[in-house]
Amino acid sequence: MTTLRELGEIAVLERLLAGLEPGAGVRLGPGDDAALLEPAPGRALAATTDTFVEGVHYRVEWSAPEAIGARLAAANLSDLAAMAARPRWALLAIGARRDGDLESVVGIQRGLGAALARHGASIVGGNLTSSADAEWLTLTLLGDVAPDRAWRRSGARPGDLVAVTGLPGRAGAGAALAMRLGSRARAPEWRALLDAWLVPEPRVGLALALAESGAVTAAIDVSDGLAGDLDRLCTASGRGAELSARDFPEDAVLEGAAAALGSTVDRLRLAPSDDYELLLAVDPAQREACATVAAARGVPIAFIGRITDEPGMTWVGETGARAPIETQGYDAFRTETR
Amino acid sequence: MTTLRELGEIAVLERLLAGLEPGAGVRLGPGDDAALLEPAPGRALAATTDTFVEGVHYRVEWSAPEAIGARLAAANLSDLAAMAARPRWALLAIGARRDGDLESVVGIQRGLGAALARHGASIVGGNLTSSADAEWLTLTLLGDVAPDRAWRRSGARPGDLVAVTGLPGRAGAGAALAMRLGSRARAPEWRALLDAWLVPEPRVGLALALAESGAVTAAIDVSDGLAGDLDRLCTASGRGAELSARDFPEDAVLEGAAAALGSTVDRLRLAPSDDYELLLAVDPAQREACATVAAARGVPIAFIGRITDEPGMTWVGETGARAPIETQGYDAFRTETR
Repeated sequence: MTTLRELGEIAVLERLLAGLEPGAGVRLGPGDDAALLEPAPGRALAATTDTFVEGVHYRVEWSAPEAIGARLAAANLSDLAAMAARPRWALLAIGARRDGDLESVVGIQRGLGAALARHGASIVGGNLTSSADAEWLTLTLLGDVAPDRAWRRSGARPGDLVAVTGLPGRAGAGAALAMRLGSRARAPEWRALLDAWLVPEPRVGLALALAESGAVTAAIDVSDGLAGDLDRLCTASGRGAELSARDFPEDAVLEGAAAALGSTVDRLRLAPSDDYELLLAVDPAQREACATVAAARGVPIAFIGRITDEPGMTWVGETGARAPIETQGYDAFRTETR
Repeated sequence: MTTLRELGEIAVLERLLAGLEPGAGVRLGPGDDAALLEPAPGRALAATTDTFVEGVHYRVEWSAPEAIGARLAAANLSDLAAMAARPRWALLAIGARRDGDLESVVGIQRGLGAALARHGASIVGGNLTSSADAEWLTLTLLGDVAPDRAWRRSGARPGDLVAVTGLPGRAGAGAALAMRLGSRARAPEWRALLDAWLVPEPRVGLALALAESGAVTAAIDVSDGLAGDLDRLCTASGRGAELSARDFPEDAVLEGAAAALGSTVDRLRLAPSDDYELLLAVDPAQREACATVAAARGVPIAFIGRITDEPGMTWVGETGARAPIETQGYDAFRTETR
């Protein structure tokens, strides 16, 4: 017998994906941020599902129930943003302990529903069952997308710019500080990092606005960390990428966290981090247009590198020194905590 | 603090449903077998989600992984059948133990995918995460339905006939025998009941055929037991029902189980039982047409009573004696095992 831990999440997923037959009316099956379905000719629907497990994906000592629900919504909304889809409908399955607090479950749903509503979506169904141990929440989210405008991971071309929204690595740094410092991580100096971890803002509006421009050739959301998710985008596109330290936005708070954690800001930027930001490949001719759209929405965007013909990812440091980027994703069956 | 166990599943669900706002493009929200969505004008999509938890909804000592997956598919397919929807696309979220067997997870997905494929649907996405304790599986299933043909729970009219497919109570009796007799329940005499419990066949094809006739005024699938699910249909329709013992199909195997379990066949027919059969309200003028459609597909159908104007459910025994029917559903937070 092979256990899931022995094989690791990626290899298990490969086995599961290999067993799937392509279905009718499916424009894009498993393996991207969402599936693309064709409910009627000329219409497409993006569908994604994500699970949060108590103690793994969230901690009740760090988040109120409403914030837990809002963050699960953000994780799914971010997947739809990475397909340039407009969120519409959600189904919520809950596994709750029998001795769990009613108000906690109600609060989770309230926070989740409010977060969806801010992006035009609503809860239309669900399931409620008991969990013997850790509580868990599975959200399935559906959204509209113009069939030919949907972003995929696979469209990046050599020479495209690599763009990222927000300040990558902040969520992971916030989580690491919370684990390391305990309640001292609630100090005002770490507030921006804790917020990035606990109350992320999915980039739905920006994605819909950018999709109109046609500037984006490939997209993924940063839910596992910049290096891991860039690797997925590059692999799907059959390309590589080169990132330049100089082109990252300044982030003094992240630099402070690097010192406190005995790390470096470059390492934190690439490390496992569920930022729920967008990682995009952009037509270089459209760089300014993209920047203008993002600025108009008040979303930071940085052009941090470029797509290369040859596979593999390279880091170009401040001094110009080049080094391979190692992927370091979260593994559901090997990483002990998130 | 109020715990979920104190309040019970139905009251918890009421609190959760009360907190939901109706969303745009939703023809029917939570509370029926599936939600009805409108992805494009004149098109409707039915969406449902269901979770199976190891040790609660399935037991690895009674089912091979493929059968567990097929039964989860059946539970969701049956919900779509109860809306007269054609199954299309599914998303599967898995919570598996780190020390779990890879081949078991792969087998679950294989059985699930094969069961969906038999009804024209496919797995298009999913999520894989680790569970600290019991394994669980959440399937979300989407299907096409003609917007004006979708069955709801709420359409039953006084005088409509109550029809049920298959032989109600068999799944619950099979599960009860397995718990009571252990491996002796594998004896050939109980085979039909064990199969009803472990390898149910959802009535998708029959539902689609019956929907064409326009004979069905309300529908629900029997997933909690005949009494509990009839109560839901009656409550949604603002009506009552009267069931007649004489009109139930003969079931010698169920009679044998009643003797072995110290129960009666009438009690077993009404008891908690996830038969995944269809419970329908039928226009009395269409009785023969319905029977003909079911016979053509080889599905047993029985007309076991009628919808009444006044609320409440009544049992008319073999002797003509009348008694109220008590609902006795499964409660996720109070019932100890299923």
